[in-house]
Amino acid sequence: MPESLQKLVELISYLPWIGEKTATKLAFFLLKANPSFIRDLSDRISRVQSDIRECPVCFSLTDRSDRPCAICEDHSRDGRSLCVVEDYLDLVSIERLGIYKGRYHVLGGSVSPMHGRMPSDLHMKELFERVEKDGFEELILATNPNIEGEATSLYIKENVKTPSIRITRLSRGLPNAGFIEYADDLTLINAFRGRG
Amino acid sequence: MPESLQKLVELISYLPWIGEKTATKLAFFLLKANPSFIRDLSDRISRVQSDIRECPVCFSLTDRSDRPCAICEDHSRDGRSLCVVEDYLDLVSIERLGIYKGRYHVLGGSVSPMHGRMPSDLHMKELFERVEKDGFEELILATNPNIEGEATSLYIKENVKTPSIRITRLSRGLPNAGFIEYADDLTLINAFRGRG
Repeated sequence: MPESLQKLVELISYLPWIGEKTATKLAFFLLKANPSFIRDLSDRISRVQSDIRECPVCFSLTDRSDRPCAICEDHSRDGRSLCVVEDYLDLVSIERLGIYKGRYHVLGGSVSPMHGRMPSDLHMKELFERVEKDGFEELILATNPNIEGEATSLYIKENVKTPSIRITRLSRGLPNAGFIEYADDLTLINAFRGRG
Repeated sequence: MPESLQKLVELISYLPWIGEKTATKLAFFLLKANPSFIRDLSDRISRVQSDIRECPVCFSLTDRSDRPCAICEDHSRDGRSLCVVEDYLDLVSIERLGIYKGRYHVLGGSVSPMHGRMPSDLHMKELFERVEKDGFEELILATNPNIEGEATSLYIKENVKTPSIRITRLSRGLPNAGFIEYADDLTLINAFRGRG
């Protein structure tokens, strides 16, 4: 294969979820693709890291420079509720539903000493500062339903110093369209405990 | 999602074999990837169409400008044998084996009137010219073992005007590590006919 094509295949196959075979097929697709698509794609890839930054308030992602994100600046949203998520994509998943109209705080991951991620590696300090000064009435801990997510929520619960705030978690139970027969033990235990 | 991130996701999901979910994950991977990787990838994508061209002799791909490809210019290769393939990736598959040391001719596809691909849409004229003037002793028709590939080989056989040339096809039969039980009828018929 010509060296520059081989190099492109290598770079593409360095991407996660893409093996060498798919990378080769993608390189050939690019070779014959519309030149304006090639231009747009390479341009967007080269700019993505400078175009996108973290919101200085909630650590969500934004393309506004030196300004809070659109959600933080939307004054029609409910300033009494703060929803804490691990990652930006969790925020996107919740926003897509259109059922939550409060604020967010993106931690940037979960507490996991096993993987070397301590609370100080996340946006915890900023969370506690916001909780202390912004007068939220409810703190929704929407961390993942796994060990790391649980540890993260527990850490937050133990370190929030505002006694008046109501701290909630997303409910646990059977997923929609699931089968009791195939549910794992913990899911079924949670579904029983959360019944009502 | 910030507009410029959304735009990148859209462009990536326009690629074949990549759905919107994978595109989103790839965009986030790029957002956090090593900046030098981002630079290399966007650079290679933007240049691929100008870097790579067809060999003027065999229509394989090359990054040499205005010169035949490395295989065509390799005088140690056997100039008596010409292997005809549909696409460049077929050539790559055969070259990888290291068992063939002759020349190639890439047609650029197969004859398929149903899909509007006629012999004149392929590099047929150039093939017949090479066969006529380069004195090949064997013409290996390595088109695909399907209807279009068969039609393409038949067309070549009927139009080669050099009576002295030996025209061969790749053998047909059971694939390695396959099971007779699961072989389709035509494969089994071919395996019987080709027995020896």
